[in-house]
Amino acid sequence: MGLQDHYKPSLLQEISQDLTVEPCEQKLFEEAQAYLDSLTKPRGSLGRLEELARRLFAIRHGQRPLRVSPAIMYTIAADHGVAQKNVSAYPQAVTRQMVANFLQGGGAINVLSSEVCMTLCLVDAGCAGGPFEPHPLLLSRRLGEGTDDISEGPAMSREKALEALRYGVELAREAAFDGCQCLGMGEMGIANTTPATALFSAYLDLDVERITGPGTGISKAQMAQKMAVISQALQVNAKHLQGDAIDILAALGGFEIAMMSGLVLGSAAERLPILVDGFIATSAYLVARAIEPRVRDYAILSHASAEPGYALILEKLAERPLLALDMRLGEGTGCALAYPLLKAASAIFNDMATFESAGVMGASTRDER
Amino acid sequence: MGLQDHYKPSLLQEISQDLTVEPCEQKLFEEAQAYLDSLTKPRGSLGRLEELARRLFAIRHGQRPLRVSPAIMYTIAADHGVAQKNVSAYPQAVTRQMVANFLQGGGAINVLSSEVCMTLCLVDAGCAGGPFEPHPLLLSRRLGEGTDDISEGPAMSREKALEALRYGVELAREAAFDGCQCLGMGEMGIANTTPATALFSAYLDLDVERITGPGTGISKAQMAQKMAVISQALQVNAKHLQGDAIDILAALGGFEIAMMSGLVLGSAAERLPILVDGFIATSAYLVARAIEPRVRDYAILSHASAEPGYALILEKLAERPLLALDMRLGEGTGCALAYPLLKAASAIFNDMATFESAGVMGASTRDER
Repeated sequence: MGLQDHYKPSLLQEISQDLTVEPCEQKLFEEAQAYLDSLTKPRGSLGRLEELARRLFAIRHGQRPLRVSPAIMYTIAADHGVAQKNVSAYPQAVTRQMVANFLQGGGAINVLSSEVCMTLCLVDAGCAGGPFEPHPLLLSRRLGEGTDDISEGPAMSREKALEALRYGVELAREAAFDGCQCLGMGEMGIANTTPATALFSAYLDLDVERITGPGTGISKAQMAQKMAVISQALQVNAKHLQGDAIDILAALGGFEIAMMSGLVLGSAAERLPILVDGFIATSAYLVARAIEPRVRDYAILSHASAEPGYALILEKLAERPLLALDMRLGEGTGCALAYPLLKAASAIFNDMATFESAGVMGASTRDER
Repeated sequence: MGLQDHYKPSLLQEISQDLTVEPCEQKLFEEAQAYLDSLTKPRGSLGRLEELARRLFAIRHGQRPLRVSPAIMYTIAADHGVAQKNVSAYPQAVTRQMVANFLQGGGAINVLSSEVCMTLCLVDAGCAGGPFEPHPLLLSRRLGEGTDDISEGPAMSREKALEALRYGVELAREAAFDGCQCLGMGEMGIANTTPATALFSAYLDLDVERITGPGTGISKAQMAQKMAVISQALQVNAKHLQGDAIDILAALGGFEIAMMSGLVLGSAAERLPILVDGFIATSAYLVARAIEPRVRDYAILSHASAEPGYALILEKLAERPLLALDMRLGEGTGCALAYPLLKAASAIFNDMATFESAGVMGASTRDER
């Protein structure tokens, strides 16, 4: 089974009646490249910055100037029933403690999103221990006290998965309504490399052994345990895995993963670029692509996670993230680091001189390459 | 012959009596890592950002907070006699035209350095056509009307190379005096991948065929011509290539290359980090390393040039640049894109909460990995 086998045209409408994703037009990519070729630099010499400029131009329907700010960073937190199976180096309580740390401004994502001027918005998608006290940085979109243990049955009902997807779509719509030009998405949830790995295995037909990694840093004994738990999750949920993309998400996912999938769908529907963080966010992107392949034009993979299985997953997805910095933290930290590249691509497109305007001679062999 | 074979302890003093480069102390790297391990994230999970933070801490003698701004970007332009041998897609006049474009703010480096708040300073190290009109963005450090054709003899005299190195050291000192916390270096010079390739071949004992690339985009016929020209340069300068690091630089280099080598030496002497741009800037870094291996701690390779031979060169140098964005423009554009990563690394180190301060539980297996 491949990613496309779980596609059903009706899924998007099941999430939201008025949810549609338009493809980006090929001629907009070409128009952008023709303009880039008129700028004072050898053709193609800005490499992936030019690729980003083409994409941003096509995503925004050819609107000029290119703009990617203001930008919002959604960091979505939730708990996972499977944490009880000793698959993480950290106790479940750390999800909640880290959310509290974020609310106080002390997390890596606080520092990095502030550094690049992305507005940080934390979303409680279902942390164990009940609702948080209201806080200006926090949105409460709780789907429960955490998912059920995927190694014993489905993580959540199909209805719950749909609800999480809808919340995600809604967050993207709110960002668009507020004038955001770019989104980023990341997560916090102890044990969530376990559901993410299960999703990769189910959607991409990859062996659990090949893609299971140490996550936050578990011992070798725990790694074996984690693989066994993931295999068991695939087994006990076998019936659900024969279903459509949302059935699989409900069986193996997490609240924050489902909500991030909704964010990708919503961003694409709003024709906004969305930066995808590492291992877990990519599993959410995968789900979104299974639901609607057209999201691909709108989602930009920010960085290559250091999780050892990630390279194989990228190969299957035919994706190449912008950065490779050996990071494996999550929270959206990769998005914050990649965001300046989007700003740089926009600035190049908007502000550089052309050969003609600057009176610079062109290349003698420009068309011979 | 390897890089170390051209080393002579007296070279640094020959450039400037009071030029010394201290090594970074190992215990400072360790102290930085111990602090990074106390921050609210799994150990090592910020990957190369942590590596950067350690380096910045060691470079700055353990001074806190880490600071990399203000930063200055030196883009150094010069002409090359070998341009007459049809090794570039562009006519030599374009060096001068591009400097004029930079002075008007229209180049990629204007846009990108402004985007990341690096102060851009253009340096005329010897463009053909005489001095430019005075301009607030421009420093005149002319060494002539361009180098001599390296395929017919040495590019410049040893005295001229020393002069260029001294200018470079001086630029770093001025930056330090002005309170700069970080430098970047890039170049503009039609045909300068030719001397850079010759330098790589001479210092690293690499076959010309394996490391010659299309530069700004030449035809296949021109590629063959370029290889022949570089081989000839190595041959006619064979005697000089038996000499020390400065003899080789004088034989095969360029004014902007020599000045960038001086910048690396000067930055290291001032204990300031310096970002190195792509193919040509790396050849200058190589020369600086041949003169004084200790500069390695202070120079940060910003991006992997798309020039096909660059991967092999990196392997020989045992270096891994921060970014790989298929760029091959020069000017310092890679430095401008990598600079936000240095800012991010500093911010993480300065501003994140510790497990203790945030009341977050540590990992159960933190010491078992």
